[in-house]
Amino acid sequence: MRNLNFSEAEYKSRLRRVKERMLTEGVDVLVVTEPANIYYLSGYDAWSFYTVQALIVFQEVETPLWVGRLIDSATAHVTTYLPADRIVPYPDVYVQAADRHAAQFIADMILCDCPSAKVVGVEMGAYYYTARDHAELVKAMPNVRFKDVELLVNWVRFIKSEQEVAYMRQAGEITERMMARAVEVAAPGIRECDVAAAIYHAQMSGTESCGGLPATSPPHMGFGARAREAHPIFSDRPIDPNSVANIEISGCRLRYHAPMSRTIYFGEPPQNYRDLASHVIEGINASLDVMRPGATCEMIEAAWRKTMSAHGIEKESRLGYSIGAAYTPTWGERTASIRRGDRTVLQPGVALHLMAGLWLEDTGITITQSLVVTGRGYEALTTTPRELIVKN
Amino acid sequence: MRNLNFSEAEYKSRLRRVKERMLTEGVDVLVVTEPANIYYLSGYDAWSFYTVQALIVFQEVETPLWVGRLIDSATAHVTTYLPADRIVPYPDVYVQAADRHAAQFIADMILCDCPSAKVVGVEMGAYYYTARDHAELVKAMPNVRFKDVELLVNWVRFIKSEQEVAYMRQAGEITERMMARAVEVAAPGIRECDVAAAIYHAQMSGTESCGGLPATSPPHMGFGARAREAHPIFSDRPIDPNSVANIEISGCRLRYHAPMSRTIYFGEPPQNYRDLASHVIEGINASLDVMRPGATCEMIEAAWRKTMSAHGIEKESRLGYSIGAAYTPTWGERTASIRRGDRTVLQPGVALHLMAGLWLEDTGITITQSLVVTGRGYEALTTTPRELIVKN
Repeated sequence: MRNLNFSEAEYKSRLRRVKERMLTEGVDVLVVTEPANIYYLSGYDAWSFYTVQALIVFQEVETPLWVGRLIDSATAHVTTYLPADRIVPYPDVYVQAADRHAAQFIADMILCDCPSAKVVGVEMGAYYYTARDHAELVKAMPNVRFKDVELLVNWVRFIKSEQEVAYMRQAGEITERMMARAVEVAAPGIRECDVAAAIYHAQMSGTESCGGLPATSPPHMGFGARAREAHPIFSDRPIDPNSVANIEISGCRLRYHAPMSRTIYFGEPPQNYRDLASHVIEGINASLDVMRPGATCEMIEAAWRKTMSAHGIEKESRLGYSIGAAYTPTWGERTASIRRGDRTVLQPGVALHLMAGLWLEDTGITITQSLVVTGRGYEALTTTPRELIVKN
Repeated sequence: MRNLNFSEAEYKSRLRRVKERMLTEGVDVLVVTEPANIYYLSGYDAWSFYTVQALIVFQEVETPLWVGRLIDSATAHVTTYLPADRIVPYPDVYVQAADRHAAQFIADMILCDCPSAKVVGVEMGAYYYTARDHAELVKAMPNVRFKDVELLVNWVRFIKSEQEVAYMRQAGEITERMMARAVEVAAPGIRECDVAAAIYHAQMSGTESCGGLPATSPPHMGFGARAREAHPIFSDRPIDPNSVANIEISGCRLRYHAPMSRTIYFGEPPQNYRDLASHVIEGINASLDVMRPGATCEMIEAAWRKTMSAHGIEKESRLGYSIGAAYTPTWGERTASIRRGDRTVLQPGVALHLMAGLWLEDTGITITQSLVVTGRGYEALTTTPRELIVKN
């Protein structure tokens, strides 16, 4: 039984684009380790990346090779399009062992398929490609040259296909439901963790036709004084009256994300906080007004910056980033950033999370928008109004 | 406002034990990057490890130094015992940038506090210490020697304090409630994701006195034919009648875990499956019979192995591992493994997950136990009976 989320043709087209870039980079063999990249190229989907695993792409061999732990190989047979002989597990003695390392096994597999390999590409900054993994691989392959091609696959993922956008739309619908539940449940006296419980329940339930998955990250929820923090974890304290809460969440559909943040005010917001909210909304709307193919990331940011400067507000952190398929710890794709100096040109199929979040000395506010660039402008992935939510 | 989960005295005793090991290893400065290690030594708790961060421990300087992203420094002020001048953030231009790397900033901070540093310890195999992080740090500090002391802090964490065990007991209570909800909700015709929704809701709700947190990992749930897989993700398909489901979960209290797996059979299990369950239970009980201080990990495994061999069953993967505080992607502590060749001696305060899981050609079964070794034997962290759960 195969369980594929995309057509075999789509996987093969992705592989072709990766091989084209490998050619440009002069890489004979690419060791793909970022879980989202492995998923993108093969379909492989298991929570197994806490032990060593890789999808090895050869320029000269048609089909990639999956290498991972024996107990996870059954999942490779179910979730990938790879034929059985391209799924090669290592035995459990390699797992978290002091005396041996699975990189040695990976090296053997590379040399078996491609004894003449001269240049091996690796993803140096990928999560789960640890310093030790790399050191062991280098030691095990003394006769090849290693080349860092960290974001090679990520940049191929940058432009989403029709099917990917369809999954992101479903994720966005789940996000909306999660936020609606959070707003419904959160109130003074309610424990923060009970708001999280409601969010998670909505997240997995998804919609009638599409179940959800856990996102790469827990809900980032900062209540009261902790609204000044960007990535705090919730507690079991009850919510205070006349306080603020930032809630950043993402629905997830087949590993595709569509994040959203909103701020809830419990009670009657003071005028200066209402003003802050209206400035942020004005800023993000100014960015959206220039969102279209041909615009660069820094142009999008400049529109925000100009609006905010007029109100005397400066945001130190970037305004957003590329999104798509992702595994923990982040739904960011690590390619384009919406900030000064990023001249990446937007094209149809680029998906972004515009993260209009401010974490100030005494408070914070986050009102954000996920979207996909279209032929003429953009399509919002969530329809929740961009406004300060007030619960009186 | 400080928000500490342990007394300052406990943090300082942990630091003292780490510095003793640094002395033995001849390490002047230790760059701690594993999120659970940073949390253990300082209290720092945020979802920020997807960008570069470190706790730097100096042999010659009393208090460690926190380095991380500017927008997360507010959380360092709230969740750690560190004085304000030991919290030093880097600006956002370092985040996922092609032209600079936060390791350069970390190197500057090390040399500022300890210009005479000769040997710098790093955690080569730690999650989130990527190959690139290490390469950049080495480049930025050409005059020091680097030493891999990967599990130095993890081994200090190996023996739990009274307060840590108290949190793990609370986690265990949450785990029991999660499993009870899963058993209640799961039934033929119910979607897998709706079972997950119920589990997550119970996980965050926790108990009346203790809220829960998300665990390091989603519930590993293998339904029907996918019970052969060790770490599959749930889908939105309805559960089949006369099928089996493996469910591995963990409650989490202030980042402390107490995992548990159970197998549910929907319908009347055939006799050979009932026999398999009773063999697994006999095997794990045999291991528990020899669980006490002074026993070695391989002795625990041998008791299981002997019982299973008598029934003609072999388990290729390890029988278990050390547990405690953890961040994604695994609640395993990466120190002791319950397997042949691991001669680690058990002591009071060691916490283990005995993972009696079998993933066979045509089915799977998982009936496990989390526990803490005590002065005379062990204390179970969950009281859910070790049995095959049958839903007729």
